[in-house]
Amino acid sequence: MEKINLAQAFATFSDYWSPRVAGDINTAQIKLAKFKGVFDWHHHEHEDELFLVVSGTLRMHFRDRDIDIEAGEFIIVPHGVEHCPEALGDECHVVLLEPNTTLNTGNVTNDRTVRAPSRI
Amino acid sequence: MEKINLAQAFATFSDYWSPRVAGDINTAQIKLAKFKGVFDWHHHEHEDELFLVVSGTLRMHFRDRDIDIEAGEFIIVPHGVEHCPEALGDECHVVLLEPNTTLNTGNVTNDRTVRAPSRI
Repeated sequence: MEKINLAQAFATFSDYWSPRVAGDINTAQIKLAKFKGVFDWHHHEHEDELFLVVSGTLRMHFRDRDIDIEAGEFIIVPHGVEHCPEALGDECHVVLLEPNTTLNTGNVTNDRTVRAPSRI
Repeated sequence: MEKINLAQAFATFSDYWSPRVAGDINTAQIKLAKFKGVFDWHHHEHEDELFLVVSGTLRMHFRDRDIDIEAGEFIIVPHGVEHCPEALGDECHVVLLEPNTTLNTGNVTNDRTVRAPSRI
């Protein structure tokens, strides 16, 4: 059991849209991810997903509106809700909290799907 | 579905050791709490518990050592592990992530037990 420093953990990887598992809380996981540009529209059939922004700005597109999430802010996207994350500006660093069954691309499978995210 | 700003949410309450529920992620919950002084030794029989420090310093006492967690750092205390949180200095603000069955005082019941935490 060790503490994790977010800045140090984010410094250990540089690829985008590839979440790293940073810990398990029963059936939930905390993951760290770097976002750049626009991801793909998707939803998660069963899993709710929390996005806590650590640096940069995350624009979460929904079908009916956009919400900009800044550092120190979070949003929970309920299961079933279509969303498309976009990093505004350069890149953004995000802490994800979600069930350990969550696939990053949800109902979509493409070359950005990460089936077995590595651990910090 | 709205974003939550942590600083604004922490500003809505001032009591210590009384977590507020800030959202549900399936069977997990995100809670916000202010700590001051020393809490009580306890463990959670089934629930793992994540402590992410937003401001101040959290000293987590374990039976064999202490770990100081600063802003931007987190620790996951596995179920069954005795721990006793202490805020060093003035107060510390903590984001908790844990199953929605988690009682703040774990296996102990006393006047700081919060059975039905209110929502932000």
